Amino acid sequence: MNTADRLRRDLEEASGPDEDARNVTATRADSVLRPLGALARLDEIAVFLAGWQRTTHPRIERPAALIFASDHGVTAEGVSAYPSEVTGAMVQAFERQVATVNILAREAAATVRVIDVGVGDPTGNLAVEDAMSEERFARSVAMGRQAVADTDSDLIALGEMGIGNTTPAAAVSGAVFGGDPAAWVGRGTGVDDEALDRKTAVVRRAIERISESSDPLEVLRRIGGAELAAIAGAIVEARRRSIPVVLDGYVVTAAAAPLGVAVPGSLSHCIAAHRSAEPGHDMLLHHLGLRPLLDLEMRLGEASGAVAVIPLIRMAAAVVVDVPTFEEFGLPVGE
Amino acid sequence: MNTADRLRRDLEEASGPDEDARNVTATRADSVLRPLGALARLDEIAVFLAGWQRTTHPRIERPAALIFASDHGVTAEGVSAYPSEVTGAMVQAFERQVATVNILAREAAATVRVIDVGVGDPTGNLAVEDAMSEERFARSVAMGRQAVADTDSDLIALGEMGIGNTTPAAAVSGAVFGGDPAAWVGRGTGVDDEALDRKTAVVRRAIERISESSDPLEVLRRIGGAELAAIAGAIVEARRRSIPVVLDGYVVTAAAAPLGVAVPGSLSHCIAAHRSAEPGHDMLLHHLGLRPLLDLEMRLGEASGAVAVIPLIRMAAAVVVDVPTFEEFGLPVGE
Repeated sequence: MNTADRLRRDLEEASGPDEDARNVTATRADSVLRPLGALARLDEIAVFLAGWQRTTHPRIERPAALIFASDHGVTAEGVSAYPSEVTGAMVQAFERQVATVNILAREAAATVRVIDVGVGDPTGNLAVEDAMSEERFARSVAMGRQAVADTDSDLIALGEMGIGNTTPAAAVSGAVFGGDPAAWVGRGTGVDDEALDRKTAVVRRAIERISESSDPLEVLRRIGGAELAAIAGAIVEARRRSIPVVLDGYVVTAAAAPLGVAVPGSLSHCIAAHRSAEPGHDMLLHHLGLRPLLDLEMRLGEASGAVAVIPLIRMAAAVVVDVPTFEEFGLPVGE
Repeated sequence: MNTADRLRRDLEEASGPDEDARNVTATRADSVLRPLGALARLDEIAVFLAGWQRTTHPRIERPAALIFASDHGVTAEGVSAYPSEVTGAMVQAFERQVATVNILAREAAATVRVIDVGVGDPTGNLAVEDAMSEERFARSVAMGRQAVADTDSDLIALGEMGIGNTTPAAAVSGAVFGGDPAAWVGRGTGVDDEALDRKTAVVRRAIERISESSDPLEVLRRIGGAELAAIAGAIVEARRRSIPVVLDGYVVTAAAAPLGVAVPGSLSHCIAAHRSAEPGHDMLLHHLGLRPLLDLEMRLGEASGAVAVIPLIRMAAAVVVDVPTFEEFGLPVGE
């Protein structure tokens, strides 16, 4: 069984959320000391957490950010504002706990782990060749799965670092959902008009090159990237273990998209953290039926959006679990 | 000098933000280890905090939620889903630290103080009489000012509790900004269609009754409420002391609106926490030029939205202050 088939099988065989825990939590959310429905989305998140954590007392006590990092052969096409060397430098910053995501994680009481799936070992240039062999795809996916297996986390925030990786994100999104390839291409870390044109041309060529591939997971292997493959693996492993996941921005959502298309409903353990300023992200969220929590024009990556929403998610659980019901408080329920 | 004139004078005399602190912080935000502009709104918040906290090292270390509570004579018109007694019960819940806002505040490491400005002592029924005499208005405003003077907080989250108070919120908003009164009226804690019609008729009558009042602060006195007046006082005192403020939802923003109209620019030390599900709130935000941080269909009040965003605001400061610049980290700045 190849990697794509195994991912598909594991998604198909994974259990759904615990419906009893969801129902108990939804009932409690409607009974606690506030007007019915007044917390709307926050209550929905508490119910979501209850279902995937399989408990009527959902909690975020050990949130973990997993950042998958890799380099990309496609940077040879001049698609990024930064040289590939920045990927490794940023990995050092994560490890030294000084990058933006580390500071966000400190405030969110989350751990940060960076997993090197190809820093200094770029994937193939997707404009002209497959990004990954079956072997490398398998290895990348396995590293993503293992990273999830290694945590004992109750919430996983997925992020990425890889100079050039909004190009595979756009290519995968365009191949999976169609439409004008240009619509999926944005400025990433901030390319100028010329580089944007090159990037669009590259995405167009990549999608044309693999136009005979109908399997979305093959699309991920051929025009994705190693960190995107690892993220897909992490999402599948989290689903198998019933751990709720927070997706960061465009690249992470693009890595999730082939799973959502291959096995409809398979991303229902995932929350979209935010709507990125990268225009393709909004389209992806629509296609996948994901409603972002934040809409603050962020476009950093490195799990920053996913970590930024952890306090809100923690609050959502707490205000259902820890607020008394009208009855517990000794007040008649509002008529 | 009457209360309205004193509020106006204090707003006119208050200093603007520290432009040097803003500039230094904006420059630093553009220099830290991430692509230029990648954090967008979060960086803007850091600059906002620097300006009002008057420091190049903005921090949220002592955030305080101030909840002003009062009862409303207009509940006699049947405009709320809950009886007035619930105001007092909720004040008890705040004091016993078990209400939704208390749990949110625990997660946000914020203090909560509830200030009784008229629980069990309802204001006049604004459908037929002025909500407050000049004396009561002065007293309510003074209590709001004093509550701010009593904190040593570096960020103040303003909230309210008062059964029936979306009615004065709608009345004040409609009187100040015009338009069809019905457009300012929503279901508050969840009234049915009949009560919604009564509420709309009440708001219409109130606005007609005071149609000769052109001073927005007189509008606040005549068809507002005691907690709205206290909130206006708190906003003015925070401005005088250069303390940044987070506005909660519809009622708090409606209390702020007369100030923003009386003295243009006088709300620039305020952040809108969220866009409430109460439809008039979105209109208020537009009129006042406030962009909310969250849009999660919350409609609880009690400072819940304002406290929910404190972690984000704290993060915004931290990722400018604590992340090294490219230079400090020893990387050439991205071209």
